[in-house]
Amino acid sequence: MEVSPVYMQSDDSEPNRPAHPRGCLTGEAGKSEHIRAGHYVDFPVSVVLPAGGTGERTGLQTPKQFCCFLGRPLISYTIESFERVLWIQTVVVVVAKENIGLMTDIIQRFQHKKVRVVAGGSTRHRSICNGVMALGEEGKPKVVIIHDAVRPFVDENLLYQIAVAAKEQGILVSFSIQAAGAIRPLVSTVIATTSEGYLDHSLERAKYRASEMPQGFRYDVIHQAYQRCTESDFEFGTECLHLALQYCGTNAKLIDGPPSLWKVTYKRDLAAAESIIKETLSQSACLITGRWEAGVTLANVLQKAFGALDMELNVMPDLMGDNIRYLLRDWNFIQLSVSHSCFSEVEALLVVLKSEKRALLHPVVVISLHLSSTEEPSTSRRAEESAALMGLASTAKLQNILLYGIRLHQPGDTEQWERSALRVAEIASALIGDRNPALVGQLLQA
Amino acid sequence: MEVSPVYMQSDDSEPNRPAHPRGCLTGEAGKSEHIRAGHYVDFPVSVVLPAGGTGERTGLQTPKQFCCFLGRPLISYTIESFERVLWIQTVVVVVAKENIGLMTDIIQRFQHKKVRVVAGGSTRHRSICNGVMALGEEGKPKVVIIHDAVRPFVDENLLYQIAVAAKEQGILVSFSIQAAGAIRPLVSTVIATTSEGYLDHSLERAKYRASEMPQGFRYDVIHQAYQRCTESDFEFGTECLHLALQYCGTNAKLIDGPPSLWKVTYKRDLAAAESIIKETLSQSACLITGRWEAGVTLANVLQKAFGALDMELNVMPDLMGDNIRYLLRDWNFIQLSVSHSCFSEVEALLVVLKSEKRALLHPVVVISLHLSSTEEPSTSRRAEESAALMGLASTAKLQNILLYGIRLHQPGDTEQWERSALRVAEIASALIGDRNPALVGQLLQA
Repeated sequence: MEVSPVYMQSDDSEPNRPAHPRGCLTGEAGKSEHIRAGHYVDFPVSVVLPAGGTGERTGLQTPKQFCCFLGRPLISYTIESFERVLWIQTVVVVVAKENIGLMTDIIQRFQHKKVRVVAGGSTRHRSICNGVMALGEEGKPKVVIIHDAVRPFVDENLLYQIAVAAKEQGILVSFSIQAAGAIRPLVSTVIATTSEGYLDHSLERAKYRASEMPQGFRYDVIHQAYQRCTESDFEFGTECLHLALQYCGTNAKLIDGPPSLWKVTYKRDLAAAESIIKETLSQSACLITGRWEAGVTLANVLQKAFGALDMELNVMPDLMGDNIRYLLRDWNFIQLSVSHSCFSEVEALLVVLKSEKRALLHPVVVISLHLSSTEEPSTSRRAEESAALMGLASTAKLQNILLYGIRLHQPGDTEQWERSALRVAEIASALIGDRNPALVGQLLQA
Repeated sequence: MEVSPVYMQSDDSEPNRPAHPRGCLTGEAGKSEHIRAGHYVDFPVSVVLPAGGTGERTGLQTPKQFCCFLGRPLISYTIESFERVLWIQTVVVVVAKENIGLMTDIIQRFQHKKVRVVAGGSTRHRSICNGVMALGEEGKPKVVIIHDAVRPFVDENLLYQIAVAAKEQGILVSFSIQAAGAIRPLVSTVIATTSEGYLDHSLERAKYRASEMPQGFRYDVIHQAYQRCTESDFEFGTECLHLALQYCGTNAKLIDGPPSLWKVTYKRDLAAAESIIKETLSQSACLITGRWEAGVTLANVLQKAFGALDMELNVMPDLMGDNIRYLLRDWNFIQLSVSHSCFSEVEALLVVLKSEKRALLHPVVVISLHLSSTEEPSTSRRAEESAALMGLASTAKLQNILLYGIRLHQPGDTEQWERSALRVAEIASALIGDRNPALVGQLLQA
């Protein structure tokens, strides 16, 4: 039967993954896409991130913005998306009073730099209003972008479009345009219901759109809208674009956003977000061969085997000199060793990863690949080896580094090499894809 | 920092998981919820499942209804949801001509019994119409339920409500009610756009709903609607409720559906669906202790350790007699063995699982748990043991049974027992939760 498993498809047009996974997932400065692309926002832009939700719809006790996957709360992923955009100045996170301590801990732990925490109000509009007012206290920005804490995958390209459209001074009939909002096509037909719960009519899908986030406003526009709006707006309203239109005569430019904008609403969305991050982290691995002679042969067959699993394998003898860039870029490392019980190379790698804080935002996978000769190690030596690996793994785990071992008997002929390489690639890519902390320290057999 | 990891929360109010996981996931007959609950549909109901979509929005080459997770295509999960409802007679699956062979293979491989395959038309309405007409050929049902192939988690309770409401003969003002459809609250604000791409106005969210599937119709109503509707309806329309209203004066009763109704639209939704199934399969495991003395001690501490991970552990000495019910109900088995290199119990378990076709619809996990004495096995014996496990695992995998091994050194005192049990539970629950076929045959160390 010809049914392709989902995870084995090559998929260039993937619309869910962040548009620039490397840019999105590195903590390095200087990676702002639009500097490279040649367009840069040259006016002050800041962000308000309302995060006061109670998470009713996920069915979880923890509000969803604070739910963790891969060891980090959702809101930290969203903050990361804004922090990597060089032209964004401040991110004001608005949280319920009782969560200010928690939010402050998150900022400290994941070393967010641009964030300011502000106490929220009793409704969404009151919270956003608090955030907007807080921005005014320290030299107001030209444009303020409002986003949701639970839409972690916003990309720089869209933020750029929103910021520029919001700043534009175009005049449309009697309206000025100083606002912009992301939209998406409707997934379901929208229907009007009668008060008795029957179908009244269905809307013509082509004329309507789902209004999503981010939205951008001239600071003065959104500030004025909140000063003029009524208690009823504060209490029952949800849509900032609506306030800008009603109270400032500001119409909004609507911009088609990518599907990755979706809002984490239900518990299943958390699983989806986790799987997107995991997949993005598992695109490639870095094989460090050392100076072993067998390393060259192995590297060649392994590269082919990983390729068959749609994973890129970067091969290098060490991480010195120029190769250090892989250390700062890859999320997965396979360290080859040939002699028994020798973890010195892995230990050295762990030290560098730790000193570079590589695993601050995402768990890094390190696989110690033992190529053993035909001679079997003695029972006691094997036990020592297992214990040493487990010990290293337990310590590494505290640094968010997931260490696993794979043992491979040196194969005899070419065909065996290829079969073995495929086994190594399958096991390694399973460990890398799952990133399961419960299996660290295990020595698997290829 | 008090951040609860998503997967460690107990979550009774989980709205995404199928409402009755056991009922939903067992292949046994006689489990229809409403017989037990006392309401039964006593008129003929059949289903039309349009599955002609091309899957553009997932960004995958395979149409999404044929994408696999856990080794099975999405559409088979949806069919399963209907097959387990005793009062549903026939499920007509409408697929594009070029996929008829694929669909027939799926039906055969997963032994679906109630399904008939019909060739689709060029649009959604033409496909549904073909399905409705095909149902008429063999003694028309009283009510036909129309659903989407890509909404796998529909539950019997909602189907019951839809079927009964569609059959009712109520009269509302000038309309008769012989149709019903599931609705959900809107997740985003819906806005009307101007032709130039600006905001026109936003809809008042409380007055509108998203129209979802399933929908139910008196057979005569939907049949007539398709006979009267225009070419333009066939070409551009999407909403069956709309046709019934326009051409038969039949209004629809709208019924609030659960969030689990959601439509697999993007690739991330496939990951979400997979995680829901995996979570549902990982609620409990069955520990078979054999007659070993150490088994009793181990069972007690293990039960506590699994409990701490929110997993239920059913303990029994064997699967004879009454205990056979666990064999037919559980998806995960842990077989304890005490002597070295003895896989006879595991082999026996594999034989029974195979003969019962337990892994036809979902992969079954079997963990061989070796409790070893302080004396270490010799190198050669250990190699034999590893090879034997790997051999068994390779064969079992062909039957969709995932076999793993965990080795545990018999601990000295109570405290050590508890620590070891927690390690076993963590590793076992990781293996069960991930269900990763690449790691079968591995002997892990607790």
